[in-house]
Amino acid sequence: MTQRFLIRIEYDGTPFVGWQRQTNGISVQQVLEDAAQTLSGKPTLVQGAGRTDAGVHATGQVAHIDLPDKFDANRVTEALNALVGEWPITVIKAVAVDAQTHARFSAIGRRYLYRILARRTPPALLKDRVWHHKHPLDAEAMQLAADRLIGRHDFTSFRASQCQADSPVRTLDELQVVAQGEEIHLHVAARSFLHHQVRNITGTLALVGTGKWSADDVSAALEACDRSAAGPTAPACGLYLEDVVYEDVLWD
Amino acid sequence: MTQRFLIRIEYDGTPFVGWQRQTNGISVQQVLEDAAQTLSGKPTLVQGAGRTDAGVHATGQVAHIDLPDKFDANRVTEALNALVGEWPITVIKAVAVDAQTHARFSAIGRRYLYRILARRTPPALLKDRVWHHKHPLDAEAMQLAADRLIGRHDFTSFRASQCQADSPVRTLDELQVVAQGEEIHLHVAARSFLHHQVRNITGTLALVGTGKWSADDVSAALEACDRSAAGPTAPACGLYLEDVVYEDVLWD
Repeated sequence: MTQRFLIRIEYDGTPFVGWQRQTNGISVQQVLEDAAQTLSGKPTLVQGAGRTDAGVHATGQVAHIDLPDKFDANRVTEALNALVGEWPITVIKAVAVDAQTHARFSAIGRRYLYRILARRTPPALLKDRVWHHKHPLDAEAMQLAADRLIGRHDFTSFRASQCQADSPVRTLDELQVVAQGEEIHLHVAARSFLHHQVRNITGTLALVGTGKWSADDVSAALEACDRSAAGPTAPACGLYLEDVVYEDVLWD
Repeated sequence: MTQRFLIRIEYDGTPFVGWQRQTNGISVQQVLEDAAQTLSGKPTLVQGAGRTDAGVHATGQVAHIDLPDKFDANRVTEALNALVGEWPITVIKAVAVDAQTHARFSAIGRRYLYRILARRTPPALLKDRVWHHKHPLDAEAMQLAADRLIGRHDFTSFRASQCQADSPVRTLDELQVVAQGEEIHLHVAARSFLHHQVRNITGTLALVGTGKWSADDVSAALEACDRSAAGPTAPACGLYLEDVVYEDVLWD
């Protein structure tokens, strides 16, 4: 008999080709599936809630995994962490769930953090952990422009051309811009996101932060429903998948 | 003619044998002196405000350096950063000062941060950036014990045996214990510190955080004036030199 677990995962995205298995390098999924196979004795799917791109980090990615029911949640956490070895991936927690719970399809919310280091000199301690933006950014102006994106919209202008979602319509529940010392943090929450949506929003709001664009320019870009109307894609290394939300799943 | 500059430096201490030049590996000082020599065309001392041990980080180390007066402060910053290359060292800022200003002897205050990650599972994103403490810590109990160490005391119990300071008496101006999510931050300020003082205080307060020691035990350890009476030395990788304070030096 097998037991399904949801696992909460932290990783440093720097050395990986992304969450999803690919032929051109090591993915987070592959490392976890190799560990799960060692634990269970057979090939084992580790199904993530969302695919993160190469270089994107997670403090709260979630995946489901079916394992022999002789293991309890603590044993799953400890064993996977031991088997992951030197890769910068940590299973923070595992919880037993019913077999109908699906990491991706049962999720009712996702939360991302985007970190920008806005200073002239490069980061020594935060290399590959933030977007190094050499010019100062006005967080208040960015927030006023961000407010134009909150709610339900056609986000075609902020969607990667290779995005596979059926619809470009999404509802942004939260888009907060917070200045923290030399950093600007964007806190973004929605039920689900389009491919590159957070990075495209960030790249566009940075144009507002430097004074090149106004809030009205952001509204116009949104209304254009044309990717080329919005700003550039911010780098992967500033993005963190922080949380995936489920009904009736209690981590603590 | 030469001009003296104070430079504010950030570094990731992980790959270095420490601040100070040594024969057994690469030091932060050596990398900066090599860069300064390329810039000035001759051997150039980079005198730090304090020596940080191997693995200890800095967000605000300060050093002084004498360079040909044809360079202004911005040029010094940009050139040193370019010459440091791939080493994780950044000169944040340089300011011209008079030739009597000495990075070490003119400093009137130092400030350190110690970061503890208190959770069962290892850090993926904060490897080498925090002390991974596997057991929960009670920040409030730690603060009550920390209060016993604030002020002027003989800190022999918290001083490394190899410490070269003439006197074991120091005045702790600040010792704040702050819980921040999964982390505990210790904010420590004094005019100057003994060798390993912050790490030995941290290792001792962690005993209080787990409930093994009481605040009275910390007072007794302090009064014993005996290194073996206090707790263990916390790891280098959680420690950050945050700031060095001077009279009449304005960074902004």
